[in-house]
This record gives sequence, C-alpha cells and structure tokens, in this order.
Amino acid sequence: MPDPSAPPTALPTVLVLDADPLPRLGRLTGRARIEHTDASSLADRLPHADVLLVWDFASRAVRSAWPGGGRRPRWVHTASAGVDHLLCPELAASDTVVTNARGIFDQPIAEYVAALVLAMAKDLPRSLDLQRERTWRHRASQRVAGTRACVVGSGPIGRAVARTLRALDVRTAVVGRTAHTGIHGPEELDRLVSRADWVIAAAPLTEVTRSMFDARRFAMMQPSARFVNVGRGALVVEEALAEALTKRWIAGAAVDTFETEPLGRDSPLWELPGLIVSPHMSGDVVGWRDELSTQFVELYERWAAGRALVNVVDKQRGYVPGR
Amino acid sequence: MPDPSAPPTALPTVLVLDADPLPRLGRLTGRARIEHTDASSLADRLPHADVLLVWDFASRAVRSAWPGGGRRPRWVHTASAGVDHLLCPELAASDTVVTNARGIFDQPIAEYVAALVLAMAKDLPRSLDLQRERTWRHRASQRVAGTRACVVGSGPIGRAVARTLRALDVRTAVVGRTAHTGIHGPEELDRLVSRADWVIAAAPLTEVTRSMFDARRFAMMQPSARFVNVGRGALVVEEALAEALTKRWIAGAAVDTFETEPLGRDSPLWELPGLIVSPHMSGDVVGWRDELSTQFVELYERWAAGRALVNVVDKQRGYVPGR
Repeated sequence: MPDPSAPPTALPTVLVLDADPLPRLGRLTGRARIEHTDASSLADRLPHADVLLVWDFASRAVRSAWPGGGRRPRWVHTASAGVDHLLCPELAASDTVVTNARGIFDQPIAEYVAALVLAMAKDLPRSLDLQRERTWRHRASQRVAGTRACVVGSGPIGRAVARTLRALDVRTAVVGRTAHTGIHGPEELDRLVSRADWVIAAAPLTEVTRSMFDARRFAMMQPSARFVNVGRGALVVEEALAEALTKRWIAGAAVDTFETEPLGRDSPLWELPGLIVSPHMSGDVVGWRDELSTQFVELYERWAAGRALVNVVDKQRGYVPGR
Repeated sequence: MPDPSAPPTALPTVLVLDADPLPRLGRLTGRARIEHTDASSLADRLPHADVLLVWDFASRAVRSAWPGGGRRPRWVHTASAGVDHLLCPELAASDTVVTNARGIFDQPIAEYVAALVLAMAKDLPRSLDLQRERTWRHRASQRVAGTRACVVGSGPIGRAVARTLRALDVRTAVVGRTAHTGIHGPEELDRLVSRADWVIAAAPLTEVTRSMFDARRFAMMQPSARFVNVGRGALVVEEALAEALTKRWIAGAAVDTFETEPLGRDSPLWELPGLIVSPHMSGDVVGWRDELSTQFVELYERWAAGRALVNVVDKQRGYVPGR
C-alpha cells in the first residue's frame, strides 16, 4: 500500500465510490490499482486511497465519511458538474485537490433547456394531454425569437445555455458572481429577472446561491415568465415555487433538480399547475458515462505524470472559477 | 357594383371568406368595399367580387364554388402558406392571380420543428407520462448536435427549418424540386432520407409531393429515425406511417397536419406508439392573425396602386416559386 503522504512508489490506489454501471477504466490497467467501494465502506477505505473517484454522483457519502480520522486521498474527482454533494468543511480546508466533470454536460444541458423553453412556448404538454383525450383544439402558441432570457450562472453550462438560446434568437443575458465582458454582475440580477420571459437557473450550489429563488424573486417575475432549473434543487425554495405556480405569479416552470432526489411519491411538486418535472437527466445523453470515464482517465494520466490537473474546483467558492 | 373585367371605377369589392375571428382590415376603410361570406354563400357572391380573401384557411369552399358560372375575382389571396385547398383546375386555368401568406409562418414553424425534434431527443413525452405517474426514472437522452436531418421542401418554411436546426448543430440537408446551391434535387431524396435521424416534411401539397411518404419511404428510414410533418397531411400515407410506427420501422414521429382535419375522435392516429399529434398549429403564434391581416392590407395597397403583387403562386406548380 503506498504511503499517501509521498509520491506513490508502488501503483497508486484509485478508490471508486460507485454504483451501476461501473466506470470504464481499462486504460488504467497496470497503471493504477482500482478498488471499488460503496457508501457504507467508504470511511474505512479512504485512508488507503491515493485518489477518490466519486462515480456515484448522487451519493452524499463523501460529506459524511471524509471528516473521520486517518489519511485522506490527495485528489478527489467527481463525475458531476456540481460539487456540493462532497464539499464538507474538512475537505475544503484540506490540501486535497478536487476536480469535476466540467465540460461534459454543457451542450447536453443547453439542448435540454432549449427543449424545455420551446416545449413551453409551443404548449406541447397541453397538446399531449389533448392527444390523450383525442381532442383537436387549436391554440396560438408563442414565438421564442425576440423573447428575453436571463441565465443565472456564468460557468460553462450557463454560457452554453446562453449560446443555444441566442441561436434561437432569444435575447439572453447571463448573470454571474462578478461582472465580466458579456456577463452581468449580481447587482443586475433583480432587474434582469423581473423583465425576463425565461429565467434559467444554471448556477452551482454555494452558500451564495442557496435559496436564491425564493418568494421575493418569484414575485418579481412577470406573470408570463417561465422558470427553468437545471442547476441544483436547493437553489430554489420549493415552497415558494409552489406558491408562485399555484397563485399564477409566473406562467410555468420546468425543474430537473430537487432538494431531495429522487423526488418522493408524496411530493406536491409532481402535480403543481404548469410544472414540468424531470428526473435530474438534463445533462445525461447516450454515451455520457463513457465520456465521464474518458475524462477521468485523461485527468489521471496528467496526475500520474506530475502535470497540473485541470477542472480544479475552488473549494472555498464551490466551483471551478474562470473560463 | 364595379365591372370586374375593367379596372374598378368605383370602390373595389373585397369578398372575405371568413370564420371567427374576422381579419382586421380597418386600414382599407374608404379604399375598398369589404363584404363577408361564409362557405354556403360563396358561389353566389363570387361574381360580384374583385378580390377574394380566403381568411378561413381551413375551408375547401373555393374548390367547390369556383367552377360555377359568372364573373370571377381577378385576385385571390389566401391567409395560409398552402394553396392546395383552393387550387381547382378552373382557378388554375384562369387569369386570376393567386397569392399566399408566404413569410408569415417560416420562423414559427421552424421553432415548432425544433421544439418537436428536441422534445423527442430528450424523451419529454415520456417524462410527462412518468410525472403523471409520480415516478422518478432517470434515462439517458439523445444529443441533437451532430445528428442528421433531411428537410423535404426548399421553400421559405423548409429553409427556415434548416437554419434553425443548423443553429442547434444538426447537420441538415434540404431537398427541393430541383437542385440549387445548398438544395439537393429529388434524385438524392432516398439517399438522404435513409441516413437521416430526422426527416422533416415541409413541402407544399402538389401532384408531385402527394403521398411521397409512403411505406417504401418509411421502410428505408433508419430504425432510430423520427419523422415530422409540418407540411400537408396528404404528403403522408397515414396507413403507412401507422405501420412504420407500429412495426418500429422508425422510432417516432410528430404530425401537425392530417389528410382530414380536424382529426376525428375515432382516428387510430391519436394512439399510435411514439406519435405526437398536434392540431395544425405549428405556424400559429400569438399575433399571427394580425400579421396575416397586415400582409393582406399591404398586398391590397400594391394591387390598388397598380403595382405588381408579390407572393404570387405558380398555379401549375402549386406554390410560390423561387426565393
């Protein structure tokens, strides 16, 4: 077993927190000792790992296992864009490098947002309801070209969403944590949200963004506005979204992420008027797991060669900063 | 009453074949005598009209009323892109000029096609079904970027569809009646259809295009292909589409137009596996009727001033030729 406080003299141990299906790490054969763990054994296994691959991106096991005693991996990679499910204070304060799957999800999520925006504009859920009732009822639908979107989140996902919406001639503003060229700062958020036809949440979950879509923000949106969340569930105060939809403060919403996932059968969200619920799938296109595997293997090759890692998370901020 | 065989010396009579809501022709007050008719009186009224505005684009009354005796309007305008519902042989052989609503529907229909393509790629109908069952079931969906589309129809609608699909990074070929720069000729249709992920019907209904999507064409499509019809219902042999979906020759379809509209309650199309049915609404966005009114008023002003009309239909071919 290598001494994790020094460069490994033997094969580095890559511990994989996984669930079906397993990552494809065949390219690492002979270059790493690959071990697998589930959540219940994670705390026991952490002291013996050089690298932790959080393949089961839905698990919050790292948050609970990490604070325990013993040595810790020097590098943690998560097969997800968000890192909120693993960034406990002890990991944030440690020397361990955290990387994420930046880049993999950008275009799929952008397409997913376009799908939701267009489906709502064209009243597609209602057409499907009417089809089930065998009822022919013509309606005028909405043009998306010329409408206004406000994308909250200026990372690669938010920027990809903006590019795709602009390709559909939607006038799109992006709001980030700080103003940059082409990115609005948070001081403009309320103004942009209040005049948007489409408000798209694509921000990481941090202490700054948690609950940012609360009753006050929904109340300032236009009655014709629609809200889309492809970020993290806890960006939204779900009770406030429920109130906004029930009281028609906004015209509709589509939510792909939730505070608690999977969403329980008894959740009132399933049946809110004008809400499209999907099961946290916006970024997951056919082949996505292979892309995630390949990304990790490429990062591993950098790491093993002593080269700088990319996609390094700023553990204080809770995301990969910069472009 | 003006003599329709000579330039009108009195106010020209514009006869409007309409249904609710009426067109907004207020700008023509004092410049035309506006009269309204329904289908049952059309034959009696035609001899007294200088201009016929076919506002009720769903009506086939012109086809039956036109062949009767008496004078005929010198100009017929239809508030639709398609002209198949009015082009009877007698009208086609006459000196009467026919114009259509070219331009009004291009972008809305392009957006509608994008909505359908993205909804099918992202499995949105299934998500809505699962939502109704309160069931959380993650699936990998499809990336549209990099897929191939074949748009059949090279008029302004087909070209707008192609522009929008290309904006989503779909590799899109357009097939027209004759090859041009950027437009494939009919000799390439089978090759392009057989390798497309998305086959989009956006052609006018003519004797050339009628029933072009028959069992042979559906059988040559990829099993993963999806078919979208925003053209005319009779482009498709509906029984062949039913067979293609039922036997899984293709993966899905979305149809907005039908041989008989409205689609009857007892039609098997409502419940075909993988078929999205919508009620001929792809081009109809909020404000569309006002746009159609404005377009007619502008054409009328040209006509009354003795200037050449635009959007003039080639009555032999059945559409407005050229770009």
